[in-house]
Amino acid sequence: MASPPERPARPLGPLALNTATTRGQWNLLQAIEGCARHGITGIAPWRDQLAACGVPEVARAIHGHGLTVTALCRGGMFTGADAASRASALDDNRRAVDEALAIGAQCLVLVVGGLPPGSKDLGEARKQVEDSLGELLVHAGAGGMPLALEPLHPMYAADRACVNTLQQANDLCDALGAGIGVAVDVYHVWWDPQLAREIARAGKRILGFHICDWLVPTTDLLLDRGMMGDGVIDIRGIRILVQAAGYAGFCDVEIMSAENWWKRDPDEVLRICVQRHRTVV
Amino acid sequence: MASPPERPARPLGPLALNTATTRGQWNLLQAIEGCARHGITGIAPWRDQLAACGVPEVARAIHGHGLTVTALCRGGMFTGADAASRASALDDNRRAVDEALAIGAQCLVLVVGGLPPGSKDLGEARKQVEDSLGELLVHAGAGGMPLALEPLHPMYAADRACVNTLQQANDLCDALGAGIGVAVDVYHVWWDPQLAREIARAGKRILGFHICDWLVPTTDLLLDRGMMGDGVIDIRGIRILVQAAGYAGFCDVEIMSAENWWKRDPDEVLRICVQRHRTVV
Repeated sequence: MASPPERPARPLGPLALNTATTRGQWNLLQAIEGCARHGITGIAPWRDQLAACGVPEVARAIHGHGLTVTALCRGGMFTGADAASRASALDDNRRAVDEALAIGAQCLVLVVGGLPPGSKDLGEARKQVEDSLGELLVHAGAGGMPLALEPLHPMYAADRACVNTLQQANDLCDALGAGIGVAVDVYHVWWDPQLAREIARAGKRILGFHICDWLVPTTDLLLDRGMMGDGVIDIRGIRILVQAAGYAGFCDVEIMSAENWWKRDPDEVLRICVQRHRTVV
Repeated sequence: MASPPERPARPLGPLALNTATTRGQWNLLQAIEGCARHGITGIAPWRDQLAACGVPEVARAIHGHGLTVTALCRGGMFTGADAASRASALDDNRRAVDEALAIGAQCLVLVVGGLPPGSKDLGEARKQVEDSLGELLVHAGAGGMPLALEPLHPMYAADRACVNTLQQANDLCDALGAGIGVAVDVYHVWWDPQLAREIARAGKRILGFHICDWLVPTTDLLLDRGMMGDGVIDIRGIRILVQAAGYAGFCDVEIMSAENWWKRDPDEVLRICVQRHRTVV
């Protein structure tokens, strides 16, 4: 980001709401209505929220408002201590693919899982992930549902995802072939010295671009994400890199913030998201 | 760590106490006495603790007990918003080199600093670090004090250190030449998919090996480190890699733990460190 490309930035991609952002107060149908009220044209729901409101009801509401479903969040959590738990996880991921198809999502986001219970073997966990992705691709490919592998910040390596850099995700995509790409979330990758190189390498493989901010100080590893502009991430710099690589899709705002944004009036949150999307991204 | 080398591990390096571990209750002179009582033959003091007890008094006590000073913690914090603050940081680092020489430390550990106030430009911060390291090397080289660049976990990129992987530290060492090496702290690097490769690359450049553990869950980004064996890091696997690369020095235990270990009887903490060093490292 020290030397952003000198050519003018492409037009900003439209804003989408990842519904983790309003999880504190709105169910998924309310979030859909909220998007429509605030002129937000894309949405990325979570599976538990989808289940709570019902797939047909949600599909109807999304269609009724003409929203683009940028992604379904999320599949993954492939790692396990034994074959039975891994097979069960894979089954659940096949259902996630079917749900993504049912609501017309552009991709299924995958958070791959961390160390199995009792394990300290990251190499083995990473091998489990690669194996499961290969198996899931058969089902996803048959339905035509792209899988979006999301590298998570290294602070989640133990308990959420053992894929922790974009380089690692790109390597996995190279190994696995067609049907799988990456989701680039600024929160997870902003620190990476190899970021510019790996975004360029990802190219058309980029299936999603997620935005929020890194707060200083950060008081919780999971639920203290910031609103764009309130932290230290050069979001615009990364957006320009992602676009230069060929991504022309939405900017999905995803702010998990137990003590701040989840407690505010969701309409206020969406108003600020819309504003910051224009001024900061 | 999936496939540790099959050759037998070399003998475990001796234990050293990084005095951040007993910061909650002991001053530096008490920590020196504690090491002597528990048969710990190495110590790595912090500068503020050294200043509080006095350099001559500390040097005398360390010499009296025949302790090895594995490192002085810490120099660094090179980044700044203007030339004056960066020059002031460099002056302070020259004093740190002199203190390290005064207590006979084997190296000066460097935590390089994060983003300057108001900046979002990691590339610029990293360039500042490289420039300051080059300048500090003149003074350190004249005194014969090795500098140990410590890559910090990416969760500290904003506020503590913008050198976040061992690859990045190795690249800097390559660029800067003689007089600088790396400190490998398992807490900062355990998640890195390139770890084995970069430890081998570091080779004789490894000036320190720091141990503690990553807890699940981790409740604080800075002060919730775990005792070896209480977390998920394959410490032994990393120790074997570091030794295979040629490192034959101490294992420095460094546990910053505001809510647990800092509140316990420091003699109990040292007893457990000695035990876990044998059984887990």
